[in-house]
Amino acid sequence: MTAPAQPAAVVLLSGGMDSATTLMLARDQGFRCHTLSIDYGQRHRAELDAAAALAAEYACDHRLVAMDLRAIGGSALTADIPVPEHEPGNQHIPVTYVPARNTVLLALALGLAESLGASDLFIGVTAVDYSGYPDCRPAFIASFEELAGLATRAGTEGGQFRVHTPLINLSKADIIRTGQRLGLDYRHTISCYQADAQGRACGRCDACALRRQGFADAGVADQTRYQQLASA
Amino acid sequence: MTAPAQPAAVVLLSGGMDSATTLMLARDQGFRCHTLSIDYGQRHRAELDAAAALAAEYACDHRLVAMDLRAIGGSALTADIPVPEHEPGNQHIPVTYVPARNTVLLALALGLAESLGASDLFIGVTAVDYSGYPDCRPAFIASFEELAGLATRAGTEGGQFRVHTPLINLSKADIIRTGQRLGLDYRHTISCYQADAQGRACGRCDACALRRQGFADAGVADQTRYQQLASA
Repeated sequence: MTAPAQPAAVVLLSGGMDSATTLMLARDQGFRCHTLSIDYGQRHRAELDAAAALAAEYACDHRLVAMDLRAIGGSALTADIPVPEHEPGNQHIPVTYVPARNTVLLALALGLAESLGASDLFIGVTAVDYSGYPDCRPAFIASFEELAGLATRAGTEGGQFRVHTPLINLSKADIIRTGQRLGLDYRHTISCYQADAQGRACGRCDACALRRQGFADAGVADQTRYQQLASA
Repeated sequence: MTAPAQPAAVVLLSGGMDSATTLMLARDQGFRCHTLSIDYGQRHRAELDAAAALAAEYACDHRLVAMDLRAIGGSALTADIPVPEHEPGNQHIPVTYVPARNTVLLALALGLAESLGASDLFIGVTAVDYSGYPDCRPAFIASFEELAGLATRAGTEGGQFRVHTPLINLSKADIIRTGQRLGLDYRHTISCYQADAQGRACGRCDACALRRQGFADAGVADQTRYQQLASA
């Protein structure tokens, strides 16, 4: 951890449990981490706040890029899907969908890596829980690595970019066990689609249910801060 | 031009002469064009205004994505390089550099294409005038096409994305002759790094010099609107 020539890495950090665990793994592998959050109007401010707080806790150089993707989202970000943070109650809350999401995220991470002189990117995609998304597959990641080499001066000078996806084959329970082993306090991560301004989870939405199940499967106590006590 | 099933294309449109010519070529090839401009704090508002006006002139569905890339730019967008729009006089004006620029632009264009169901992207890169940039080379473009197929549901369902770069082997004079042939009024494009609020060029900066030389080489009258008469 205190090696003199610690390599730098850019870690995409949303403030959720997957990217937070990815940060722990990047640190564990000896990288000096620059964390990058993208505010594209997703969910709520609490998740971005959680990302910034995690970055501060682990002394990472943290960057926030704000982008207004309403012009691109088309149907997914406009009238026909309710805005997640205002959706009440017990029903399924659709995540704000961003087309070509991981391509955009990795492109920005590549830009930061290029300006820092870093060659390593970390992204917390999983092919287990989200197998429906094409841009979570190893073939996509490998293709982006190749693109990165062609897109940048560092690449043309013989450098090679690596896109690390340490969670790609892990279940939610595996992820939680991994973070737990590395000392991550999951109370500092946000999964809930409608967390309040203090970052407390609703305990009722799909994201909360998935998270709760993950803790149960992992045999780890769920210390998520809820807005009110919800039944286990 | 009025075929019933005109395919849709996303055209990256900055408001400069290269992307405007690219739009003319996309139209000429029979595409129904959706234009996309990215406001990442570059240059001045006049260029984005020119893009919007061109899109309106050719009845394109125009989209603007605003992003704040200051957090990523590192040295290039911060203190050690003067902000282009406020740089006075006759000296070289550095363009605001955006790391991994074309990767970011194409990722956003891909996102829009995905949400529109379009398979064709147009970008006005040239390997002639900007041969120093790795992300203007055909190998980069080919790699992005491959990535696009892997990144999207359309791609995994057998669809193929094409990234058209019709200017890639053209000189500035070639580009101007092409646009001229297709009826483009170059007065509606902005090249100057310090155009005024009315979109009039300074006539003195490097971009103006390159543009003026292009018109001279093409044997086309330069009708660029200048802030004051500059000597030819």
